[in-house]
Amino acid sequence: MKVLTFGEMMLRLKPAGNNRIMQSDIFEATYGGAEANVAVSLALLGNEVAYLTKLPANLLGETALATLRKYGVDTTRVLRGGNRLGIYFLEKGASVRSTNVMYDRAGSALAEVKQAEFNWDDVFSGIDYFYFSGITPAISTELAQIVTAACGYCQAHAIPVICDMNYRGKMWSPEKARQVMSTLMPYVQICIANDEDFAATLGINAFDGDMSRGIDQKESFKQGMLAVTQKYPGCKVVASVLRNIYSVEDSQWMGLLLKDGEFYESTAYKMHVMEGVAAGDAFGAGLMHSLLHNFAAQEWIDFAIAASVLKLTVSGDLNLVQESEIRSVMKKGGGASLNR
Amino acid sequence: MKVLTFGEMMLRLKPAGNNRIMQSDIFEATYGGAEANVAVSLALLGNEVAYLTKLPANLLGETALATLRKYGVDTTRVLRGGNRLGIYFLEKGASVRSTNVMYDRAGSALAEVKQAEFNWDDVFSGIDYFYFSGITPAISTELAQIVTAACGYCQAHAIPVICDMNYRGKMWSPEKARQVMSTLMPYVQICIANDEDFAATLGINAFDGDMSRGIDQKESFKQGMLAVTQKYPGCKVVASVLRNIYSVEDSQWMGLLLKDGEFYESTAYKMHVMEGVAAGDAFGAGLMHSLLHNFAAQEWIDFAIAASVLKLTVSGDLNLVQESEIRSVMKKGGGASLNR
Amino acid sequence: MKVLTFGEMMLRLKPAGNNRIMQSDIFEATYGGAEANVAVSLALLGNEVAYLTKLPANLLGETALATLRKYGVDTTRVLRGGNRLGIYFLEKGASVRSTNVMYDRAGSALAEVKQAEFNWDDVFSGIDYFYFSGITPAISTELAQIVTAACGYCQAHAIPVICDMNYRGKMWSPEKARQVMSTLMPYVQICIANDEDFAATLGINAFDGDMSRGIDQKESFKQGMLAVTQKYPGCKVVASVLRNIYSVEDSQWMGLLLKDGEFYESTAYKMHVMEGVAAGDAFGAGLMHSLLHNFAAQEWIDFAIAASVLKLTVSGDLNLVQESEIRSVMKKGGGASLNR
Amino acid sequence: MKVLTFGEMMLRLKPAGNNRIMQSDIFEATYGGAEANVAVSLALLGNEVAYLTKLPANLLGETALATLRKYGVDTTRVLRGGNRLGIYFLEKGASVRSTNVMYDRAGSALAEVKQAEFNWDDVFSGIDYFYFSGITPAISTELAQIVTAACGYCQAHAIPVICDMNYRGKMWSPEKARQVMSTLMPYVQICIANDEDFAATLGINAFDGDMSRGIDQKESFKQGMLAVTQKYPGCKVVASVLRNIYSVEDSQWMGLLLKDGEFYESTAYKMHVMEGVAAGDAFGAGLMHSLLHNFAAQEWIDFAIAASVLKLTVSGDLNLVQESEIRSVMKKGGGASLNR
Amino acid sequence: MKVLTFGEMMLRLKPAGNNRIMQSDIFEATYGGAEANVAVSLALLGNEVAYLTKLPANLLGETALATLRKYGVDTTRVLRGGNRLGIYFLEKGASVRSTNVMYDRAGSALAEVKQAEFNWDDVFSGIDYFYFSGITPAISTELAQIVTAACGYCQAHAIPVICDMNYRGKMWSPEKARQVMSTLMPYVQICIANDEDFAATLGINAFDGDMSRGIDQKESFKQGMLAVTQKYPGCKVVASVLRNIYSVEDSQWMGLLLKDGEFYESTAYKMHVMEGVAAGDAFGAGLMHSLLHNFAAQEWIDFAIAASVLKLTVSGDLNLVQESEIRSVMKKGGGASLNR
Amino acid sequence: MKVLTFGEMMLRLKPAGNNRIMQSDIFEATYGGAEANVAVSLALLGNEVAYLTKLPANLLGETALATLRKYGVDTTRVLRGGNRLGIYFLEKGASVRSTNVMYDRAGSALAEVKQAEFNWDDVFSGIDYFYFSGITPAISTELAQIVTAACGYCQAHAIPVICDMNYRGKMWSPEKARQVMSTLMPYVQICIANDEDFAATLGINAFDGDMSRGIDQKESFKQGMLAVTQKYPGCKVVASVLRNIYSVEDSQWMGLLLKDGEFYESTAYKMHVMEGVAAGDAFGAGLMHSLLHNFAAQEWIDFAIAASVLKLTVSGDLNLVQESEIRSVMKKGGGASLNR
Repeated sequence: MKVLTFGEMMLRLKPAGNNRIMQSDIFEATYGGAEANVAVSLALLGNEVAYLTKLPANLLGETALATLRKYGVDTTRVLRGGNRLGIYFLEKGASVRSTNVMYDRAGSALAEVKQAEFNWDDVFSGIDYFYFSGITPAISTELAQIVTAACGYCQAHAIPVICDMNYRGKMWSPEKARQVMSTLMPYVQICIANDEDFAATLGINAFDGDMSRGIDQKESFKQGMLAVTQKYPGCKVVASVLRNIYSVEDSQWMGLLLKDGEFYESTAYKMHVMEGVAAGDAFGAGLMHSLLHNFAAQEWIDFAIAASVLKLTVSGDLNLVQESEIRSVMKKGGGASLNR
Repeated sequence: MKVLTFGEMMLRLKPAGNNRIMQSDIFEATYGGAEANVAVSLALLGNEVAYLTKLPANLLGETALATLRKYGVDTTRVLRGGNRLGIYFLEKGASVRSTNVMYDRAGSALAEVKQAEFNWDDVFSGIDYFYFSGITPAISTELAQIVTAACGYCQAHAIPVICDMNYRGKMWSPEKARQVMSTLMPYVQICIANDEDFAATLGINAFDGDMSRGIDQKESFKQGMLAVTQKYPGCKVVASVLRNIYSVEDSQWMGLLLKDGEFYESTAYKMHVMEGVAAGDAFGAGLMHSLLHNFAAQEWIDFAIAASVLKLTVSGDLNLVQESEIRSVMKKGGGASLNR
Repeated sequence: MKVLTFGEMMLRLKPAGNNRIMQSDIFEATYGGAEANVAVSLALLGNEVAYLTKLPANLLGETALATLRKYGVDTTRVLRGGNRLGIYFLEKGASVRSTNVMYDRAGSALAEVKQAEFNWDDVFSGIDYFYFSGITPAISTELAQIVTAACGYCQAHAIPVICDMNYRGKMWSPEKARQVMSTLMPYVQICIANDEDFAATLGINAFDGDMSRGIDQKESFKQGMLAVTQKYPGCKVVASVLRNIYSVEDSQWMGLLLKDGEFYESTAYKMHVMEGVAAGDAFGAGLMHSLLHNFAAQEWIDFAIAASVLKLTVSGDLNLVQESEIRSVMKKGGGASLNR
Repeated sequence: MKVLTFGEMMLRLKPAGNNRIMQSDIFEATYGGAEANVAVSLALLGNEVAYLTKLPANLLGETALATLRKYGVDTTRVLRGGNRLGIYFLEKGASVRSTNVMYDRAGSALAEVKQAEFNWDDVFSGIDYFYFSGITPAISTELAQIVTAACGYCQAHAIPVICDMNYRGKMWSPEKARQVMSTLMPYVQICIANDEDFAATLGINAFDGDMSRGIDQKESFKQGMLAVTQKYPGCKVVASVLRNIYSVEDSQWMGLLLKDGEFYESTAYKMHVMEGVAAGDAFGAGLMHSLLHNFAAQEWIDFAIAASVLKLTVSGDLNLVQESEIRSVMKKGGGASLNR
Repeated sequence: MKVLTFGEMMLRLKPAGNNRIMQSDIFEATYGGAEANVAVSLALLGNEVAYLTKLPANLLGETALATLRKYGVDTTRVLRGGNRLGIYFLEKGASVRSTNVMYDRAGSALAEVKQAEFNWDDVFSGIDYFYFSGITPAISTELAQIVTAACGYCQAHAIPVICDMNYRGKMWSPEKARQVMSTLMPYVQICIANDEDFAATLGINAFDGDMSRGIDQKESFKQGMLAVTQKYPGCKVVASVLRNIYSVEDSQWMGLLLKDGEFYESTAYKMHVMEGVAAGDAFGAGLMHSLLHNFAAQEWIDFAIAASVLKLTVSGDLNLVQESEIRSVMKKGGGASLNR
Repeated sequence: MKVLTFGEMMLRLKPAGNNRIMQSDIFEATYGGAEANVAVSLALLGNEVAYLTKLPANLLGETALATLRKYGVDTTRVLRGGNRLGIYFLEKGASVRSTNVMYDRAGSALAEVKQAEFNWDDVFSGIDYFYFSGITPAISTELAQIVTAACGYCQAHAIPVICDMNYRGKMWSPEKARQVMSTLMPYVQICIANDEDFAATLGINAFDGDMSRGIDQKESFKQGMLAVTQKYPGCKVVASVLRNIYSVEDSQWMGLLLKDGEFYESTAYKMHVMEGVAAGDAFGAGLMHSLLHNFAAQEWIDFAIAASVLKLTVSGDLNLVQESEIRSVMKKGGGASLNR
């Protein structure tokens, strides 16, 4: 069983620690992107996974590619060319100061890719599942069409489609997101939707927008999840991460799964957040791993949320953990041991 | 409207992270000082501000000066000469281990400045407000006289004087502080007093000295603040930061303002402290900004305390934040969002 | 009064911050080992202390030796030779991700030491107390015999023996530990036992193994401590650190002392843990210091636990604190002050 | 006397030391650009200087601006807006491995600036000299027109124009460069041309392209310089840096000046190159300083080349040296002393 | 065409810059080993290459494996298990202070591998060339036998064997080396021998041992190379790097090739050495690449020596360069250009 | 045989690499001082050595003390107290940019020491040789008297006195130096004088002041050395380091010794200088070691200069080398080997 994920990989530049850009004379450089993060997680968990993107034929593109290879992702489908690698700057917040993402991704190789560059027969050769997030169609109108074409190919070839809504307010408006995603959702069998995804991307009311009390709105989220399956009957599974975010460092995380009409809840983890990004991708990868290994429904959400909260302890975009560590969190709920 | 702040700027040397000096082979070098910090904050908030000090004509003095310029402070009044730049070593504590400041400031350019070096007409040309803290007169007997002269000039020219008590036990005794400050307070229109400032500097009882429960003593602080206005009738505004400090990382902060006979309270922020110094200067700058922009009284204290708690999330002495970030904290009370 | 501690010193390699080994291209290098840590603490507290080990005659062995000298430990008894310095890799966890220790100590100079290399008359010349931990006899069968010989020498020469059980599951099985330690315990006058030490090393039931609620099991620990003195009547003092460990960063620590039939309890400290290793060694050194200075029994446990929780704020294996800092924690319970 | 320089400022990202991008997980971040470098040098040498550019209204734009202010450049003419700050990646070579610059500057604020955004009366208010380099018109067709307009304004208002040819093969072709620069050269009074500038930008034969023996072709360069003044009679001064570059670290540098028909030569410096970029800008600033202070012609070239070779010892784009250091190099030819 | 290389991969720990171990509190961590370095070079040059070794099933083993994958090496033949990853410490010298390598490789996974773990049919499936160096048989007696078995398999299946003598005085004596290698040389078609390899490993006189004048002994080396082909008639190609090493930073390098009875010489490169290790492996990879692509004999040695001297400019064990960079050095002899 | 050295130890703060103070936000912190450096060298070479100074009773003083202990120096004579540890800032030059030392040592513990604090019987108990440099009496008038008293005590007790002139133009004038040193020289048996020492400190003409051609003036230096022994007949040995300094990185070093009327010359080493300070102290330590071990006269100068040039390859003030490394340089003249 082999998964293909499709999206954009960027150079991420972050001042050391919690430093501000204005006081920083170094940037930590890592490489990531929602769907690449999912691919790396799946590979580290021992699964076959390929990644589809376009990377420039320069040193940054090479390094992004090498990063994928390092962690075991099949990169043979990656297109090369274009003008630049997208960049995003990350200013990690602290306490009451929010973390800030500044995109510098316009004009990237993927942003300027054309539909004619993709040969879907080649792309999907040997692929059993297709995963993308709402970020990919948000990049350009052309990409929205390309993703549609990919979904169409999957439908025609019975390749299940998994999609993480991943709404990004700095990339598109709710109106535009809803317009595009409403054409894509009919292809989706498994949908991940968190926080503002419900309203912004799906046009469904599930959340009042107060990030400090997402878990407190569990019942409302459940209604929202049900609404997704009603609106898109092909979508049999909806998964959500619910969060109470108290500060940059402190939050509580739990997972909700609606699968074949039943709800499954994970325990809620009280977390110290070391790195607040890409935990959603870790969640998605946890779900995919559960799917690939036919876990029971309760294990889906337990595994996915444990993978997700572990990501909050790892710096960079990639969830560099092993299955045994996820299992250990699932079993004892966390860090109360020193292995020696 | 242009502010002049007057004080000493030092090289600050700090081991990386929470390292102790004995295990550290690097020091992080930044430049700061109470009144310089206020000036930088005011400039970053878009105000006209000049800084008065004396810096040695060597590479460290140049770098201190460049730091001021970098953030937009008018440095044209800065005197040059003397033997050295003062230094302070900062060992950042952790949990139960207190943060420790070690001064190495004797013999600095400002510590040896003479009154004859100041031409008050030039210094105050174009200046509308004068700001200093209790640190400046604590540096030397000559400086106590120089500050008195500056205050006298302000009085004669209707330039309002704002003073942050800023008592430093490693610089002078309470007796000496009270003796000097009691001659300066009659010139002061707006006074900032925190914690031990009341007893040590003003000789007023407001606080029992237990830093872990300052907020719990709010009523006592209010009495102290009233006492200030009674003792010094020219002082129409008294502002205080109240804190419950539980550990190096954990504390709660709130602001109190007595203005024209009325009290105004901010909300109390539960904080993760990343950097425990210079938050008082950020508070002072927040007040000054409120004064310069004619904010309503409640906004004075809301703005000032939000600026102050944001400083706890920024490393170094300088509060490198924008007004929009202060407003964001005022509105939603903190870090429960990820901007992307 | 002079103490001798005996054990293995290793190079510790740790990725920066909370990084994982797989993402790290630097390792922070420090040197430590349970009994070396105790020796350094004692020296920093102003006591006479010598350390016994074997170090290879290479650059790493030299550096380990220099580290001991730096902090004032008498290194004149250290044997030189053998093939390598043991290494341990430390991956610091975060939140729910446990800290992980990976030993690479096989074939070290001490692991291959032979009994014939020790001349006990020379080793114990001028020594008043002998301290070792359960790690030393766990290293090799030969070392178990060497420690037995040392204890025998101490018994014959009325040198009190202090032992920290220090069970390490990655070094030996509970069965092997119990077998060896049961031959050593009859020589021990003061015994430190924490957590799994009771069951694994002493075969005594005191703790249900749940690290997140050790303090909650205080009465059970007391029974275990009593059982130690009953099983080994020569052992007049038993000391324990009890912990509720909530996550890698958050825990609560308290000390228990059974001395001459009476129990003494310290206050419980709520801690932010910056560095989770070697706090037990700091505790042992605190006890030894109390013993050397004839503190009252209550002060023994108060001093030892304060030394121990301070270690949680210092990076590396060595507890680089001064007695005044320990006293300050004992007095006001922690970091609620900024010394300036 | 006040100078205006006009060009683009970029974020420069460079792996530490001589590391390659593929092996680097940090980038050193500095800010620079040919004309900004000249402005900073002039300010550090005590001159009045303003810089004209357009910077985005984001954190990177703010930091670029703060960098200019830090070193004393007047930034009041800087336009704000646009989408991004241009970036360039610098891989520092070593020995036989060439240093490599990778531009990521498309779509920058300045690259998309429109002529209508400039009010020349405001821009040139109080300005006595105008300096730009061939990089500025190479950025976009619009910028070539904007520079032409600026030059026209200068001609009309008797503001002398100084231009460094600064040919960049990665920005435009020789054909395009020659076409644009041939329309600009008639406005130029002082011209700096090095190496391939003669052929690529001016269409004049002065150099055979072998960077390892530029100094050996001094006579040929002189002919080229004379040809410039013949082709553009308004250009009374031509200055050149001649280099024998043996490896990334080793080279020899000398300066040539043609002024009012006479040639002046500097001594040739044998250099260890620590940082190979922006030495041409330092040379340009040295010439401008000579012009502003009416140095004798021989001093022009001696001062400019000494400033230039000092830049080779300073990391980053900015020539952080003082006039006294330039004078010291002029006097004794270099580093044969230890000042203590 | 696919190459298999066989050897040991280690963790390399090096103090930053030229620091000594005794003054270093960080180690830079990279992963390498002679034959792994060759494999990475071949992969970066676009060739198919697999690597054979045994790596422990721990985090260090994982990271070594990930490093190979990152650069495109086929790792599917790598055995897993054993106790530890070998380590080597590298103290980079400076000027007159020699670079020092300290091995800590005893007991490594590969050092304890058994012949029975290798299934040669699987190992050599799809392999066209076999490459190893004299380090592999030096690791253990078992490995000498394993390498013999591998060579036997190659002989039986017409897979050409390439061997770099790579004598290491810290691993075995000349006597032992000669004894083992004399049984292996009959299998070798292409042999790389440098410096002391001739005497220590092959028992042939080619070099007087003075590293500062290897190139000066070119004729003597030629005699030695001829002697190799006479002693081992199956060996049709002998390649050597000749060096004049003046100091840690300064040396001159050239290549000699004896192929089918003819000698070919490269130009001699005057080098600044940034990193003195693994240049021999880069040379070996250059030869292999020449072999794989049927270069003309002169191009073999030109390409190999250019690849080798480029390695002297790249930190770490791996030669992170592209073919275009090697070609650029071949064409113009080095760093006399700045690409921008 | 035990040596006592007497002088000031300072905190040295240096920007990383060749960075300038103005661009540096970290300082590398090391501890050193001429006579402390000599003491550490002697200890590392296996000699008994004590150091006399006064260090403040603060964290910086503790760290300086720990540094001495780390390398094996007897610190039992060190006085504690005073106000501060002296600091010096070091800006490492490059190529033509000179290295710059900025002292911030006024008011240090030693600078304010009083003669009454020294009990010479205690200080010299067990001491066989006394070593100081001209820096110590340059610190204060009181110290000049204290050094005189120490020398007097040595004379009275037949303890030979060794003095390195070590003239520092930033500490005193030639006139003052000559006045003080002329009263101290009559006590000196072995004198080290380099470069400007002859003229500035001894009033003897040996050198024309051109640092780039010191070795070229060997005969003139010999005359100067002879003149020293004639002026101060008690001084039987004069040693000098002669240097041709071409740039910050390149120089040539040789040693000259006049012993009992005969001259001895070392070979001249062509050096890459990694760290240009404290090589004179390494030379002094090399001489002292030769004296302590009764080397032949030629070996004195060979050993001392080899120790000195090795220091040029070690960062920091301390010459962290072993005798075997010095011997290796003496034998083969340097770094033309890679030990592995």
